[in-house]
Amino acid sequence: MHTDLVAALDIGGTKIAGALVDGRGRIQVRAQRPTPAREDGDTVMRAVEEVLGELGASPLWERASAVGIGSAGPVDASAGTVSPVNVPGWRDYPLVSRVRAAAGNLPVELIGDGVAITAAEHWQGAARGHANALCMVVSTGVGGGLVLGGRLHPGPTGNAGHIGHISVDLDGDVCPCGSRGCVERIASGPHIARRALENGWRPGPDGDTSAAAVAAAARSGDPVAVASFERAAQALAAGIAATATLVEIDIAVIGGGVGKAGDVLFDPLRKALRSYATLSFVRHLTVAPARMGTDAGLVGAAAAALAKRPDTAAAGV
Amino acid sequence: MHTDLVAALDIGGTKIAGALVDGRGRIQVRAQRPTPAREDGDTVMRAVEEVLGELGASPLWERASAVGIGSAGPVDASAGTVSPVNVPGWRDYPLVSRVRAAAGNLPVELIGDGVAITAAEHWQGAARGHANALCMVVSTGVGGGLVLGGRLHPGPTGNAGHIGHISVDLDGDVCPCGSRGCVERIASGPHIARRALENGWRPGPDGDTSAAAVAAAARSGDPVAVASFERAAQALAAGIAATATLVEIDIAVIGGGVGKAGDVLFDPLRKALRSYATLSFVRHLTVAPARMGTDAGLVGAAAAALAKRPDTAAAGV
Repeated sequence: MHTDLVAALDIGGTKIAGALVDGRGRIQVRAQRPTPAREDGDTVMRAVEEVLGELGASPLWERASAVGIGSAGPVDASAGTVSPVNVPGWRDYPLVSRVRAAAGNLPVELIGDGVAITAAEHWQGAARGHANALCMVVSTGVGGGLVLGGRLHPGPTGNAGHIGHISVDLDGDVCPCGSRGCVERIASGPHIARRALENGWRPGPDGDTSAAAVAAAARSGDPVAVASFERAAQALAAGIAATATLVEIDIAVIGGGVGKAGDVLFDPLRKALRSYATLSFVRHLTVAPARMGTDAGLVGAAAAALAKRPDTAAAGV
Repeated sequence: MHTDLVAALDIGGTKIAGALVDGRGRIQVRAQRPTPAREDGDTVMRAVEEVLGELGASPLWERASAVGIGSAGPVDASAGTVSPVNVPGWRDYPLVSRVRAAAGNLPVELIGDGVAITAAEHWQGAARGHANALCMVVSTGVGGGLVLGGRLHPGPTGNAGHIGHISVDLDGDVCPCGSRGCVERIASGPHIARRALENGWRPGPDGDTSAAAVAAAARSGDPVAVASFERAAQALAAGIAATATLVEIDIAVIGGGVGKAGDVLFDPLRKALRSYATLSFVRHLTVAPARMGTDAGLVGAAAAALAKRPDTAAAGV
C-alpha cells in the first residue's frame, strides 16, 4: 500500500475545505461544505465529517497516512482543541480527537490558519528559501505565522505569529480581543473601509464600500482612500518591524484580500518600514506579496502533516 | 589537560568584564577594565586584550576551551562584528577575530548582551525550566532575549529579543534609533525619571533624580511618581504581550535597575498585562523579577560558549 498522500482540512468561518494532497503539494481530490458557523458545535462537526466522508469515498483515500488541519484560531495544538472566534459553537472543542475518529484513526496534526498559510508560502510560495520569515493574511482579520531557523514555528499551542493582535498603539481604539491598538484594528479590510468612509470617502454608483473599492479609489488618486491605505501600511510596518526586531526575520509575505491591493498598499508599506525597521539587523527586511492562491490553507495543512511523518521531509517545513 | 572551563567576556559601555567560568556556571577567576568608550576602536580593543591577558595569566587558563562574548549591541554574530551604540569607535568592528587572536585561537561565540542575560536566567535563574521565555534588562536602555522551544534563540545575527526597540506607540515620540514610540523610549530608567520631572515630581534634598529615586517616591505614594511607573509598565506590558502573541512565551523575566523597583513596577505591570495579553494562548503569561545578579552577562556568555562545545550541554541552553 502506498502512503504518499495526506488529507488536509482548512476550517474557516465561511467554509470547510478538504483535500487529498500529494508529497509535492498537488491537490488530488477536493471536498467542501459551507461552515454552519452559527449552529451548535456538533452541527459544525457534522460538516467536517461530511467533507472527510467525501474524501474517504475516493479510491485514493487508502494512500493517505495522516490528516493536517489548519483552523481559524485560537487553536490549542497541545490540547487538540479549537475555539475559533467566528464559530461560537466551538469552544475548547476537541477537534483533533473527533477528526481522528472520523478518519479511521490516522494521526492528526493541528495548526492555526495563519501558521498553515505560512507553511504553504514557505514550502512553495514567496517565502521559499527564506530561513526566517513572517507570512501574513490581511483580510477581514489579520493573521500570520513564522518560519524561524528554516522551520515552521507554530509554538506550543499552534498560534505563534498572531501579528493581528499585537498592539502598535497602546492608547488606541479598543479591539474586540480586549486589547488596544492592535494591528488588525487599524489594517484589516473592514477598518480600511471604515476609516475611508469616516473621513469622507464615498463609494461609486455600485455602492461598493469594501476595502477593494477603497483600493480602486486610491489607485485613481482619491486622497482619503490613499490616506486610509497609508495608515494601514503604517500599522503593518510597525508590526512587521516589531516581529523582525524580536526574532530576526528577513522577509514578510503579505496575502489575503488587502494584500492584493498592490502598490497602494506596498508602496506606503515599504516607505513606513524604513521608519520603523531601523536597527542594523532588521534594515534589510523585504516585503513581498503572497504567491499561493486560495489553496494556501489546504497546502499548508498538508505540509504540516507531511512534516510529522517520519519518512517524509516536505521541503524545509 | 582538562578543558572544563570557558572564558567569558561581558562588554558594555561602562566596563569590560572577563572571567573563567566552570561547567556549572561558577566564576573561578575575574578581570575587569573600564570601557574607554569615547576612544578609537583599537584603544577599546586594548582594554579587552588586557582583560584577556589577566585571565591568561591564571594557571586555570589552560583549561579553557572556548570564549563566549556578550556584547552591547547591535552585534552581527554571522559576520563576527559589533557596532555598540555607546561605543562609537566600534562600527562593524571585527571583535570575534580580534578576540580569537588574543585568546590563542580558541573558538569564540558572540551574542548580544540581552541574549547573554537570557542564557544566564534560563540556565540558572528565573527562566529555568521554562521552554519559552523572554528575559529583559530594563535599565538605562531596554534589552532582551528569547528562549524558544527550550533553547536560546539568538537569531542569525545574535540580536533576537531586542524588545526595547519595538514600537508600541506608532505615532509616539521619536527614538534615537529612528523609530517612534519604542518600549525603551517609554520604559527605560532615564525616561521614567524624565516623565516624572516633566509632570512636577521633585527630588529630595539629596537632589537624586534617578529612576530609583522616582521608585522610592512612588513607594511613598507620590502620585506623579506612581503614574510614571504605571506608564512604563503599560509600555512593557504591550511589548511583552506582543512578544507572547508572536512566539508564545509563558514567562517574562525582568532585570536591570528598573526591574529592581519591585511592586511599584510589577503591580501595574501585571495589571496592564491583563489588558494587553488577551488571547487564550497568552492569557496565562507570568512575569517575574530576574534572579541572576550583576554576573548574569558573564554567566550567559559562558553558557553560550559551553553550548557550542560538542562535549558539553549547559542545561537547556
